Amino acid sequence: MNTVGKSLPRGDAYQKVSGEALYVDDIKMHGMLAGKVLRSPYPHAIIRDIKVERAKKLNGVIDVITYNDIPQIRYNPAAYPPTNVPGRMVLPKDMFIVTDKARYVGDPVAAVVAIDEEIAEEALSLIEVDYEPIEAYFYPFDSMKDDSLSIHECAEKNILHKYDVGFGDIDKGFKEADLIIEEEFSTSRISPAPIEPIATSIAMAHPGGDITIYSATQTPHITRRIIAEALGLGISKVRIIKPSVGGAFGGRHGVTNELIAAFLSIKTNQPVKLSYSREESLVCTTTRHPAYLKIKSGVKKDGSLTARTLDVVVDAGAYACHAAGVTRMMGLLGLSLYKCENLHFGGKIVYTNNPPAGGIRGYGNPQGTFAVESHTDTIARELNMDPLEYRLMHHVEKGDVNYQSGLEIDSCGIEECIKQGAKKIRWSEKTKSSSENKKHGKGMAIMIHISGTRPGLSELSTARITVNEDGCAYLSSAAAEIGQGITTSIRQIAAEALGFKYEDVKTDNYRQVDTMVDGYDMGAYASRQTFSNGVAVKNAALDARNKILNHASKMLSYDKDNLTIEDSIIKDANSKEELLKVADVVYDVNFKEDGQYIIGIGVSDIDGNSPPFAAQFAEVEVDIETGIVEVLNFVAAHDVGRAINPYIVEGQIEGAIQQGIGYALIEKLMVDNNGKVLNPEFANYKMLTSKDMPKIETLLIEEPSPIGPYGAKGVGEPGLVPVAPAIANAINDAIGVRIKELPMTPNRILKALQNKKD
Amino acid sequence: MNTVGKSLPRGDAYQKVSGEALYVDDIKMHGMLAGKVLRSPYPHAIIRDIKVERAKKLNGVIDVITYNDIPQIRYNPAAYPPTNVPGRMVLPKDMFIVTDKARYVGDPVAAVVAIDEEIAEEALSLIEVDYEPIEAYFYPFDSMKDDSLSIHECAEKNILHKYDVGFGDIDKGFKEADLIIEEEFSTSRISPAPIEPIATSIAMAHPGGDITIYSATQTPHITRRIIAEALGLGISKVRIIKPSVGGAFGGRHGVTNELIAAFLSIKTNQPVKLSYSREESLVCTTTRHPAYLKIKSGVKKDGSLTARTLDVVVDAGAYACHAAGVTRMMGLLGLSLYKCENLHFGGKIVYTNNPPAGGIRGYGNPQGTFAVESHTDTIARELNMDPLEYRLMHHVEKGDVNYQSGLEIDSCGIEECIKQGAKKIRWSEKTKSSSENKKHGKGMAIMIHISGTRPGLSELSTARITVNEDGCAYLSSAAAEIGQGITTSIRQIAAEALGFKYEDVKTDNYRQVDTMVDGYDMGAYASRQTFSNGVAVKNAALDARNKILNHASKMLSYDKDNLTIEDSIIKDANSKEELLKVADVVYDVNFKEDGQYIIGIGVSDIDGNSPPFAAQFAEVEVDIETGIVEVLNFVAAHDVGRAINPYIVEGQIEGAIQQGIGYALIEKLMVDNNGKVLNPEFANYKMLTSKDMPKIETLLIEEPSPIGPYGAKGVGEPGLVPVAPAIANAINDAIGVRIKELPMTPNRILKALQNKKD
Repeated sequence: MNTVGKSLPRGDAYQKVSGEALYVDDIKMHGMLAGKVLRSPYPHAIIRDIKVERAKKLNGVIDVITYNDIPQIRYNPAAYPPTNVPGRMVLPKDMFIVTDKARYVGDPVAAVVAIDEEIAEEALSLIEVDYEPIEAYFYPFDSMKDDSLSIHECAEKNILHKYDVGFGDIDKGFKEADLIIEEEFSTSRISPAPIEPIATSIAMAHPGGDITIYSATQTPHITRRIIAEALGLGISKVRIIKPSVGGAFGGRHGVTNELIAAFLSIKTNQPVKLSYSREESLVCTTTRHPAYLKIKSGVKKDGSLTARTLDVVVDAGAYACHAAGVTRMMGLLGLSLYKCENLHFGGKIVYTNNPPAGGIRGYGNPQGTFAVESHTDTIARELNMDPLEYRLMHHVEKGDVNYQSGLEIDSCGIEECIKQGAKKIRWSEKTKSSSENKKHGKGMAIMIHISGTRPGLSELSTARITVNEDGCAYLSSAAAEIGQGITTSIRQIAAEALGFKYEDVKTDNYRQVDTMVDGYDMGAYASRQTFSNGVAVKNAALDARNKILNHASKMLSYDKDNLTIEDSIIKDANSKEELLKVADVVYDVNFKEDGQYIIGIGVSDIDGNSPPFAAQFAEVEVDIETGIVEVLNFVAAHDVGRAINPYIVEGQIEGAIQQGIGYALIEKLMVDNNGKVLNPEFANYKMLTSKDMPKIETLLIEEPSPIGPYGAKGVGEPGLVPVAPAIANAINDAIGVRIKELPMTPNRILKALQNKKD
Repeated sequence: MNTVGKSLPRGDAYQKVSGEALYVDDIKMHGMLAGKVLRSPYPHAIIRDIKVERAKKLNGVIDVITYNDIPQIRYNPAAYPPTNVPGRMVLPKDMFIVTDKARYVGDPVAAVVAIDEEIAEEALSLIEVDYEPIEAYFYPFDSMKDDSLSIHECAEKNILHKYDVGFGDIDKGFKEADLIIEEEFSTSRISPAPIEPIATSIAMAHPGGDITIYSATQTPHITRRIIAEALGLGISKVRIIKPSVGGAFGGRHGVTNELIAAFLSIKTNQPVKLSYSREESLVCTTTRHPAYLKIKSGVKKDGSLTARTLDVVVDAGAYACHAAGVTRMMGLLGLSLYKCENLHFGGKIVYTNNPPAGGIRGYGNPQGTFAVESHTDTIARELNMDPLEYRLMHHVEKGDVNYQSGLEIDSCGIEECIKQGAKKIRWSEKTKSSSENKKHGKGMAIMIHISGTRPGLSELSTARITVNEDGCAYLSSAAAEIGQGITTSIRQIAAEALGFKYEDVKTDNYRQVDTMVDGYDMGAYASRQTFSNGVAVKNAALDARNKILNHASKMLSYDKDNLTIEDSIIKDANSKEELLKVADVVYDVNFKEDGQYIIGIGVSDIDGNSPPFAAQFAEVEVDIETGIVEVLNFVAAHDVGRAINPYIVEGQIEGAIQQGIGYALIEKLMVDNNGKVLNPEFANYKMLTSKDMPKIETLLIEEPSPIGPYGAKGVGEPGLVPVAPAIANAINDAIGVRIKELPMTPNRILKALQNKKD
């Protein structure tokens, strides 16, 4: 391997550090207008009337749209690829462009378009809305009550979807158990909070009915599908251009504010920019679903599971969005970690008047794994087993069924992750507390995740490689660079398969993705980008390489099978003698043999799903006087299949751990009794800075996927999944109490210590 | 044929009429600076010193570059494709980015970059240049003198290149003649004068050494080659983006001001826009070469040619640019119109201190044809033959050699052009003069031109067609839309070959061409765009169609040979029963059969050159008191091979005739004795408006090319080529004098009438 497996520098580093990188908000267009959204101050209210005349008269205001001014299109902003599996996609279309009924504090009720943002903002204050506030619900258990008002007419008792999925014989399983243990957990609403505010779009309605939208999206092609469907257009009439994106973490998965911008542009026939503020980004896009999880396990004395049930109630917030998919992952991945034949997953997804939730990094798995892996420690302790030994005995392995995908696990490095991680954290050494009040403890958790969405959903990815006469390749792929480094990874894959030097493969780091010109790709979610797009890139590179070698073989009168390409040079495959530069071959193809051109096409031909695994270990210090938890050391051992670029893979894992620790200990979007978010800014929505971070040691275990490019598995999400239970288990180890609610704040810890004493 | 041959509406009409079309000058970028060029006021001067300190100190000025501040790169701005024919490309590298010696009034001697154009303009006045003016030459016969100073050191006696090309035995030929006739002609310097000023670029030097240039070019890929070579970069490090262009006519063929913009951006690390004014566009880009032509013919009594020589002296102006190619066409196309075995072409291309000349629409052929076709009438009249009958007897035909390409003529509709045109203009009817002072006359001329540059130069064109799940195709091609309608024509070719509805094929009418993402195409010149790129598009469409039918055949369990596509529907090829929509097939390919994608690739596999032919007829009225010539009627009968879109082909021909009449009668860039252009604005550089135009009747003769797409031949340039001689011959018919200098102004006509009387 010449480029795959090397920590090569990121292709977009120059752009980022020099400030040249183009973000949607940087784009200026001739005649571009600015949009602003008027939002409901009530969590649940019928809108009796809206008067927009005064706003429209303000100098510089071009138009104002309300529910009655535009087609009353219902849509779901969640981005899903097509599926052949009946019933797989549960996507109620419950959202309007601007609504006639407010369902959360922040729901869009009108939008203004003006010559600049200040005037648009001023115009908002001139719109008079006659609201009739009605009873609102901030807990799913409240909105599910018989006498609760319907948030959406379509959902009975505000339950938008239920799961009732069983495997084996659950009753028989529990009967066979020596011990039955049941616990309840709950998780919090957090924001993906990328550094670039979520929801920045420029819509440009073209005369003739087509529309171009510059969007900071993580899923250009699927976003195009949703918008085209909402606007009643063929997908080819909608063009999405995605330049640089400053982080996404699921918050840009699907449609954010593109449809509002689209209608403002359609109404004015001018380009319209709609940039959400930090507050709008935190409150009015999507958050991670709060979940209430009940887990019950039947175990034999050796810890083997005879039966397990997981029942969850999920707070969808005001709109359905990704809730069904997220809940499915929460249950079925949670139940796939340990060997067990009798399983049941029950799920209720409930509308509330909270801010809407979506498909945030981990996509349900962090919630499920928090419950399962906290519970695993409880079981081990009940059985007087070392939690690590318990996991080594009972984790799933290659050949077992992954209930999420329904497929056999095709490769599994979990045992190696546990063993190497344990060594690194010195699991067997008892930690010493630094003082009487500061208790040390160690904890661990494991996880299983997905690499893409097969077999339930389509994994279509494509790539195209053109080789120019200077011997450099241009790689076109709609893989969405959102800061994760995908363009660097696929450049490495392309260079490896072509036999080129890394620097001889170029990508477009400026304009980046354009659905009109770049081939299909589903986008950056489900830890699929390298896994699926990488296969397409590799196939495209092999196609181009084959064409180059065909021609070189003619030029050299050499048997093609005896030729190879290394460092952009055609060599004798055996002697490695240098025969010809790639550049010379391409020049010959292009100009001496008119009628040829080196272009390689590749498509992902993935038909499986190689789950990545991880074992994470936390060493914490709990101050029993203040309740403050400090994470001292963190070890993350991940089965990544194959690290295409170890530096980038480590970056993905470390970044995810940063979010995971925030999820475990401090992050929460706090909604008061009136539905108002109390901390809608970075000044009070606290996240861990680099200074707050513990030392992280990342171990990359390479148990190759038989499917992914050069064996790679998904690495985008796994790092976050087991962080909270690893820390919860470490806290338990330190102070002997189990915190079952996230975040595990000092208050909760002090309260738990108090309860323990009582 | 469903779409080819139909006058379908232009794909970019909406953009143009709504004002949405994006031109380089519309583009705004974050941090974009403005450039301005300081130009020599002397036609020939050594620059002793340049002081830039005062300019640099002006508030808002970022930098000033002179010859000494940047690498002293020599380049030639002419765009040529690569060739395999030794000696074919004569491209002296005689131009600097900014020069150390002024060679014409307007030569760039320094460039300023500032925060806006006004400040840059002001800074120009603060630059102090110490010029030493030296003797300057405005006629090639002056600069060729033994004691003349060298304009460029490399050229002996200021002759940059000579031609001495013979076929047969010229002496023997003249000996066999019954009559020898010799005449001399001269043509003028005119400007291509498109409505969008020539030379508008934005250069954006990227950290890391790559550069992106937005350029209003007609040859994106070749412009990339020139710039890459000049900057010493691989071509993949240079990216050219060409949005809408407001006319080109050869003036944007190659490099205009991109390299100055590039260095201003490299020096400042910011994007720099450099927009030439109308005056700069008219004087400091390129013009049509003035030529002095001597033609000598030996003829038998029946008019058959026993020998012919054509000797030209061409005024290249201050720089070589395209002069060698233009002169070659002038001679070899001129000599290819009539059957003759003994031929000689002699050419001298001479530097002067006039504004530089370039590759303007027709590329030498208008000058050569003016001489040959004026001369043909002289011969016919000397032999007492009807000039039309003479042409019918002696024109070349299929199977004869085209001396320009060296190939046999593969199809020839000239006879049909002459006959149908004659009928339309009522050639046999004597015209009646409207009064004693207003003399009517009819004249005609024929022409042969080229379709592309084979076999001398590469004709590489590529195209790519993606078919989306809604059944619409996206056609990517680097064919350069410069207003001629190429994107509409290739959409029709793609739709025809795919079997799709016209509206189901889309092109990018906004960004248009991007050398990074669109496959190779040589660009819009040599009447090659439809001819060559059209073949690539057709091949790409057939490739995509084949993939669709393969899959449809599987879906339908139908023999593929029994399937066809019409109106975007898969039908039984025989019964025409509708079986399936294309959209359904593509949806199935994309999402039900993961691992496939409909993409078609096409390359031009042209190995010939089908010359287009034309016969044009003018009816004029000459006022013998004022000397004013009015063109009353104009008939243009063109062998276009196949009119892909008759409306667009007619538009090309009519627009070319407008330029041709201007060339014949009024247009001239006037240079005074100090080298200063006296009419550098549209207020005094007069062109014909729509009101000045005669009635034009266009006859499309379709003698299909065996090579071009659906038989199409080149149509971009031919319309202009025979206009001037047709009018000259009509004037001769009207008043019995032959005007041998262009433009045929009232002064010249009155002078000729006076000479006739004397």
